[in-house]
Amino acid sequence: MKNAAKTIASIGERAFIRRLCSDLPTRPDVILPVGDDTAVVRCGAVDLALTSDAVLQDRHFLSSDDPHRIGHKALARALSDLAAMGAEAAWVLVDLEIPGTMPTVFIDALYAGIRSLAERFQVAIVGGDTTESTQFGIHVFAVGTLPIGSARRRNGARAEDVVMVTGSLGDSRRGHHLDFTPRLAEGRLLRDHVHAMIDISDGLSVDAHHLATASGVRIVLDAAAIPKRFTHHNNLSDEALQKALNDGEDFELLFTLAPEKIAPLIVAWKQHFTEPPPVVIGHVEPGSAGLWLRVDNKHKPLNPDGYDHFKPCRQP
Amino acid sequence: MKNAAKTIASIGERAFIRRLCSDLPTRPDVILPVGDDTAVVRCGAVDLALTSDAVLQDRHFLSSDDPHRIGHKALARALSDLAAMGAEAAWVLVDLEIPGTMPTVFIDALYAGIRSLAERFQVAIVGGDTTESTQFGIHVFAVGTLPIGSARRRNGARAEDVVMVTGSLGDSRRGHHLDFTPRLAEGRLLRDHVHAMIDISDGLSVDAHHLATASGVRIVLDAAAIPKRFTHHNNLSDEALQKALNDGEDFELLFTLAPEKIAPLIVAWKQHFTEPPPVVIGHVEPGSAGLWLRVDNKHKPLNPDGYDHFKPCRQP
Repeated sequence: MKNAAKTIASIGERAFIRRLCSDLPTRPDVILPVGDDTAVVRCGAVDLALTSDAVLQDRHFLSSDDPHRIGHKALARALSDLAAMGAEAAWVLVDLEIPGTMPTVFIDALYAGIRSLAERFQVAIVGGDTTESTQFGIHVFAVGTLPIGSARRRNGARAEDVVMVTGSLGDSRRGHHLDFTPRLAEGRLLRDHVHAMIDISDGLSVDAHHLATASGVRIVLDAAAIPKRFTHHNNLSDEALQKALNDGEDFELLFTLAPEKIAPLIVAWKQHFTEPPPVVIGHVEPGSAGLWLRVDNKHKPLNPDGYDHFKPCRQP
Repeated sequence: MKNAAKTIASIGERAFIRRLCSDLPTRPDVILPVGDDTAVVRCGAVDLALTSDAVLQDRHFLSSDDPHRIGHKALARALSDLAAMGAEAAWVLVDLEIPGTMPTVFIDALYAGIRSLAERFQVAIVGGDTTESTQFGIHVFAVGTLPIGSARRRNGARAEDVVMVTGSLGDSRRGHHLDFTPRLAEGRLLRDHVHAMIDISDGLSVDAHHLATASGVRIVLDAAAIPKRFTHHNNLSDEALQKALNDGEDFELLFTLAPEKIAPLIVAWKQHFTEPPPVVIGHVEPGSAGLWLRVDNKHKPLNPDGYDHFKPCRQP
């Protein structure tokens, strides 16, 4: 009886999701079940990355946001999951929940944002379901392709690796969370160089923690080396650091690789991209699994402190 | 400005969805885009059927319904789409939108319903997204596999075909809509015998109309031959007929095949299943595309009159 009164909010979403995701029905062709940026299943001579992602009004966007950008974000989030595995995006389905009173021009603009991003990455929109609802929301289901066995998981970091990140971090709410480009091309390039990879959706402190614990390694991040997004902040200010560590929705790629792979990676990067290459922000060192931050040459434990409310199922 | 004031409800959902679904980004490996029970894409030596389906509280179920049955229904609807193509179900992702005040035992029971059906059909649950929301809902994304080119579409009906249906129809709201078994095994058997196939989700009158118009044929259904679900109705009553034609959520398979294939189909059916075989309920005849009902030897046009509010994207 006591159990019957428990709510999801009261037991904590994280524990609840972990329970939901445990011991799910599987099949021999499931290479990687729940627990990474995407699932991976085998389909003949290729692997498929499968992911789903929901954005809901008042949670992931505001009704006053530009609908084109909302549509862009809805698809880009799912594509970022594919990027984190090193997959090529192929096919998506888009489920819409729409209040009947919503202006059609709003949905037209939203869908234009989705279409535009899909076309840019040669992704086919092959279906979806549309339902009337009280709350406006979008669910995107995305399938990507990978050469067999090439998916880059979050559990592959090794002792002696360095930790690198693409782009810059923090202050995503100023607009980046609606406009970011999923790092699909970068993820495919990185796939051949890295040991472990994850996209930063919940914040560097949370996602680096996922990477450290999944890999069973001790990761030390260097506070001064973390690239902060907005130059109007003093880059060495504590505010800029806290934003970079904890804001989330950066959708950059965080990865580890052997130090001798840094130079070949940078060379390959410059051949493919005009954007600045990823930078080293830390390293793996001997010690029990965990995440540490080095500030002024002192190490302190770094607790995950990013977005932590109703975690997605695949990131328990 | 006039356009800006239009809402989805005011322009009609059907027209709106048709506009959304037109001219979507595609790729050469997309065999069948939006417009059938599932999309079909080519993945090396197999075809994949991709579908999504949403069930929302107060629309597809009531908060007073048994959560185990709600979970069952959410997955079964998506699997029924795969069945209608003749596909084998393989992998699913389950997105949940849950109010934080919801008791955990409710979601546990819901998930038990999903798991139980997944295990029964050897379907792997490989992920999903869980988000807090004001309205409770479930989105299921399902992937099925098919031998190359074997998907059975709704547009393949031919002159001289007969029209058949599995099971019986109507009055689904009494409980069938929460308990039905997706016709996956039956769909795979039928795949080798039929020209066109669709699952009855919106009602026989609607889905037979889809089949007739997609195939460009004239279908005549025989009122007396349509199997009605509940024996407490007089099977020849107009009420039983209207329910069978229009209630929807039967999730039976409606298909057409050459008359000479009926006998081999029934033989094969009896080898595989203990349930009564499908029955002939109509035929294709010369004439312009459309749907007709024969009652007392008189033909009359049969207008689609089933569930018609916010049609799913793939069934414009």
